[in-house]
Amino acid sequence: MSIATVQAGLAIRLASRTKALQPQTSGLAPSHLQANLIVLPQRYASDFRLLCQRNPVPCPLLAESSSPGAFTSLISHLRPTPSSSPIPLTSDIDLRHDTSKYLIYRDSRLIEEVLDLESHRQSDHVGFLIGCSYSFEDALASAGLPPRHTTLGRHVSMYRTKLPLCPAGVFSRGTYVVSMRPYLVEDVEKVSDITRRYVATHGEPIAWGWEGMRRLGIEDISTPEWGDVPLTEDVKGVFAEGVEGEVVPVFWGCGVTPQEAVMRAGLDGTVMGHAPGI
Amino acid sequence: MSIATVQAGLAIRLASRTKALQPQTSGLAPSHLQANLIVLPQRYASDFRLLCQRNPVPCPLLAESSSPGAFTSLISHLRPTPSSSPIPLTSDIDLRHDTSKYLIYRDSRLIEEVLDLESHRQSDHVGFLIGCSYSFEDALASAGLPPRHTTLGRHVSMYRTKLPLCPAGVFSRGTYVVSMRPYLVEDVEKVSDITRRYVATHGEPIAWGWEGMRRLGIEDISTPEWGDVPLTEDVKGVFAEGVEGEVVPVFWGCGVTPQEAVMRAGLDGTVMGHAPGI
Repeated sequence: MSIATVQAGLAIRLASRTKALQPQTSGLAPSHLQANLIVLPQRYASDFRLLCQRNPVPCPLLAESSSPGAFTSLISHLRPTPSSSPIPLTSDIDLRHDTSKYLIYRDSRLIEEVLDLESHRQSDHVGFLIGCSYSFEDALASAGLPPRHTTLGRHVSMYRTKLPLCPAGVFSRGTYVVSMRPYLVEDVEKVSDITRRYVATHGEPIAWGWEGMRRLGIEDISTPEWGDVPLTEDVKGVFAEGVEGEVVPVFWGCGVTPQEAVMRAGLDGTVMGHAPGI
Repeated sequence: MSIATVQAGLAIRLASRTKALQPQTSGLAPSHLQANLIVLPQRYASDFRLLCQRNPVPCPLLAESSSPGAFTSLISHLRPTPSSSPIPLTSDIDLRHDTSKYLIYRDSRLIEEVLDLESHRQSDHVGFLIGCSYSFEDALASAGLPPRHTTLGRHVSMYRTKLPLCPAGVFSRGTYVVSMRPYLVEDVEKVSDITRRYVATHGEPIAWGWEGMRRLGIEDISTPEWGDVPLTEDVKGVFAEGVEGEVVPVFWGCGVTPQEAVMRAGLDGTVMGHAPGI
């Protein structure tokens, strides 16, 4: 998680901007839309836009720079239904500063973690904001179904999968990254119903349960690639296969997906993103 | 393929309407957008719309009934870029008659093939038009890369895959259906570049080659589930693995996908669609 909110949450963004914010933004801006960030050289922008269009569940495109080099003026792609007009964005946004930590990649290799983009931004850089599933966690909590990582003060667990993205131009080798929240089997339908309407932030789960986990090509739930290891015990049930009152993994599309796809594409030049999980 | 064209192609649609049209519409309406049809009871419409939103490559939603029971008045979902306004539709369209053959399903079982929808349509039916890959075949032919099935006067080969769709409400068990066109290995990049911009009609291929075929879970290229069996010899090369001057299968998202997803959802009531491949 990064650019704290798109439509509002000014206080959070200002706190990020001054680096006064704690590193984890999950739950800090209830009812606001949270977003992930990726910044690319202009020559890759149209392929990246297409990647998002073709894979809206893991890569829901909310907004992009209004022109190359624009970090404070964005075009909205966010619309409530397919046929409606885009929702206007808040005017106060600054992609260079509004996240508490950024990753800088050069020629597809991570070279630095930084607090702002000032020293790396270039005049041909185009920024993209991608919806973040932290946006629906407040709704789950309100329904009495808070994600376990939020109640434990941990980061959500994120996994690389073998599910291919629909390729788009140079972005031809991406696979889904998913976030995982454990739930009781009998709550999965309600959890799905609650998150379904969050179409701009990954929506309903793409898979759940142990069979679902295997279909995604995840072999071991205890070794996420990003975020914290999920705890194996729960007040309500045990997080293990075949146990009565079973708690199962539930998987959503994750905004780390586009960053991973960009890394795999072997791009030349400087690419920048938010630090996953914050 | 069905509703011959959305934006134009009036002559084709009128020919379908009077049943004077030959059964295969591929190549009949060059430069026009062709569409697939599915008609559902209203109670499933929002889940179906979401299925298309979440899976735009196999299920590109072009338009839908302006209200339940409307077969001649449609809302466009078609837009050239994510942030632009929908493209207006032609005013002369009639979902009840504009396809030469329809399939009627009741309680998820195929019960009849019909020439129009008059005797089965109900006041709560909502029609959806999905982009069809026949729309880009003209561009391929113009570039000297005509799909083989068009030059041989055959139907395109279509396959069920194991690649899961992103689920949406009741539509939780769908997988991609793909259309296949064989090409020389050295032409695949050019073929991809040509079809990429057809974002409303499946765009660039989702996989190609023998490894790509296996990743989709297709075991035997000679046994398509819909359309004609692909011929194994070609003027330019042999359509078999590991042969010099190799011709390989190239796979695109296919508009049969939503019809298949609807069938697997076990819906009650009357569902109607175009006959695949026509």
